[in-house]
Amino acid sequence: MSEGTTTKSRVVIVGGGPAGLMLSHLLAQRGIDNVVIEKRDHDTIYNTHRAGILEQQAVKMLTDTGIDGRVLTVGDEHDGIDLRFNGESHLLHFPDLVDATVTLYAQNEVFFDLAAARKRDGGDVRYECDVTEVLDVESDHPGVRYQDKDGVTHEVRGDFLVAADGSRSFCRRQVPEGRYSEFTMHYPFAWFGILCEAPKSAPELIYANSEHGFALISQRSETVQRMYFQCDPEENVDNWSEDRIWSELQRRVDGPDGFQLKTGPIFDKTVLQFRSFVREPLRYGNMFLVGDAGHTVPPTGAKGLNLAFADVKVLFEALDTFYGSGSAKNVGLLDAYSDTALKRVWKAQNFSYWMTSMMHTRNDITPFEKKRALGELETITGSRYGRQYLAESYTGWPHGSTS
Amino acid sequence: MSEGTTTKSRVVIVGGGPAGLMLSHLLAQRGIDNVVIEKRDHDTIYNTHRAGILEQQAVKMLTDTGIDGRVLTVGDEHDGIDLRFNGESHLLHFPDLVDATVTLYAQNEVFFDLAAARKRDGGDVRYECDVTEVLDVESDHPGVRYQDKDGVTHEVRGDFLVAADGSRSFCRRQVPEGRYSEFTMHYPFAWFGILCEAPKSAPELIYANSEHGFALISQRSETVQRMYFQCDPEENVDNWSEDRIWSELQRRVDGPDGFQLKTGPIFDKTVLQFRSFVREPLRYGNMFLVGDAGHTVPPTGAKGLNLAFADVKVLFEALDTFYGSGSAKNVGLLDAYSDTALKRVWKAQNFSYWMTSMMHTRNDITPFEKKRALGELETITGSRYGRQYLAESYTGWPHGSTS
Repeated sequence: MSEGTTTKSRVVIVGGGPAGLMLSHLLAQRGIDNVVIEKRDHDTIYNTHRAGILEQQAVKMLTDTGIDGRVLTVGDEHDGIDLRFNGESHLLHFPDLVDATVTLYAQNEVFFDLAAARKRDGGDVRYECDVTEVLDVESDHPGVRYQDKDGVTHEVRGDFLVAADGSRSFCRRQVPEGRYSEFTMHYPFAWFGILCEAPKSAPELIYANSEHGFALISQRSETVQRMYFQCDPEENVDNWSEDRIWSELQRRVDGPDGFQLKTGPIFDKTVLQFRSFVREPLRYGNMFLVGDAGHTVPPTGAKGLNLAFADVKVLFEALDTFYGSGSAKNVGLLDAYSDTALKRVWKAQNFSYWMTSMMHTRNDITPFEKKRALGELETITGSRYGRQYLAESYTGWPHGSTS
Repeated sequence: MSEGTTTKSRVVIVGGGPAGLMLSHLLAQRGIDNVVIEKRDHDTIYNTHRAGILEQQAVKMLTDTGIDGRVLTVGDEHDGIDLRFNGESHLLHFPDLVDATVTLYAQNEVFFDLAAARKRDGGDVRYECDVTEVLDVESDHPGVRYQDKDGVTHEVRGDFLVAADGSRSFCRRQVPEGRYSEFTMHYPFAWFGILCEAPKSAPELIYANSEHGFALISQRSETVQRMYFQCDPEENVDNWSEDRIWSELQRRVDGPDGFQLKTGPIFDKTVLQFRSFVREPLRYGNMFLVGDAGHTVPPTGAKGLNLAFADVKVLFEALDTFYGSGSAKNVGLLDAYSDTALKRVWKAQNFSYWMTSMMHTRNDITPFEKKRALGELETITGSRYGRQYLAESYTGWPHGSTS
């Protein structure tokens, strides 16, 4: 500690991804001092490509609070999704069904905008700072010790500590055994994801269930597309030539309508593992877990970032209430944070699990199960209520709704 | 064959349960000759107690076609169901959600009314006749050979044969190997069902998910009630005293609202096994399978009889079109029967499976799965679209809808 600094703030946020920066931004707007400690540097985060489908409410969190409006100009508003099965397309038109849309806007762009806003507003965001210790979490002056890029150790303390440090959260792992439960589900498949230079194959995302497995036809821009297909978790991308990839994708969307993917050079191939994970509670002492630090979902439901923003909103309102009430500090919403956030988390876990199981094919599936899944897709797409139920979950339940 | 008779009719129906009798009744009303062959006698069928929840459309099939209106006077119209979980009740009010109701009317009463109508109208229903052989099913003069209660063998032939002989269908088992597929799902639990002398515990059916397993609180009349609780398939009813049964049922509906079952002497205890089953196709030559002969569902979705009636409606319309068009016989709807009926069957299979999995607790369930199921119940009951989606399935998709 001899060389380092000691900072005192109100809220110490570990993790400068979208969740941490959004919380920092909201708190700053209410005059609540906070510090963000982030391990990586700005450009590394920005260059880590991650998909992103934003619920309308997540878009509003950006646009209503003075973040640059690139999400509206660069982001691509989508009116629906196409559920494809038995070789037939079934378009769910969100504005018609639930008066909502979603916006395709990559998570790293969300990060970029938030980072720029924090910089513009003089926010205290410390990149390349690696948290090595979590301090006195059960006291009223919790904090962290971290090393900056020059190897100097610093300390920062506040009234509250927020763990927004992602799915491999260091902070989460500091909670002692016996003080939490964890809930996990592993899936017997993964996604083979590609980026390619090609025009859009379709205006909306296509979620395709086929006898050969799931495929997702997504878009990135007019000239770059993102597509995925269900694969073995052990799949090696080197075994897949461009031809082989295109024929695998094509046969998963084949149908009597003659739908053809628009192909082009593939410049990125990755296998994405996924699992469902929830830590309970999302609080330990005066440390609060938000976003991926507390829970991860499979990508099928596109809920990851949206769930993180929903956590942030609940926590921000709790902190704002706490600080806003002056001397008679009101801890009610902070005490409720974990339960309130987890209600939405479990709904999103269910939705992600449901979309995943309905659209994917397991190797160990029985013929009955396969037929039943198609029966479910027929029921959902054949009923306006079914389409509305799915569309409401996909575009996002209202923030702050409790059940 | 020396002593027996040989009858020629148009449609030969094997099975005089609700499905067979309803088809016979509808055909007779259009002047289409038919014979019903039933193994049991009238009173044995009438005294076999089976629950019954009729979709509005099934009620209409009875009332609109001149069956006695006891379903309206003796039957009990229900406005909804209560989904109970985490010790809290969530009422789904069907008229408000989907402008429909269901009617609690036991299947043996449906049988009684149909049998009476066939007798009144001079229908040819032969009880205590045991089919021993299926004849020339691939020809245009299929039939059956059967033994009457005196051991005399008779033969009856028609243009078409209809297998409405229940889940253990003799007719179904005569289809040669290689000409069909079967889809089955077994569940690792059964239902312990009781009949008791007690007042109603609640106005609507209660479907209760609890950490101790599923329970269904149902009604039969003002003074007799039907209740079930999830049990091991190997459970022995003799191990269950009245006290033990009531405490098991009560703990599955316990909650902060202090809900208490109204108890009374138990006069019937049974363990109900259940499975999901579908035979495809529902046709072989000129034999058509309807109802339980073609498919069975677990009782959780209350779809068994309703699905049988939906089959009957599709097959009746196909036969009516065939005979109605005179010399230019139109086989289009008959050729489509299996596919048309199976679309609804798989939707109902999915619904029954879904209600079963959502409400029951498996021994091998992971903690994640348990939480997810509660997340699903929260999503469904917390969303008007979710409640509508479930209510529409429960009260029945429109007859004749194809997807």
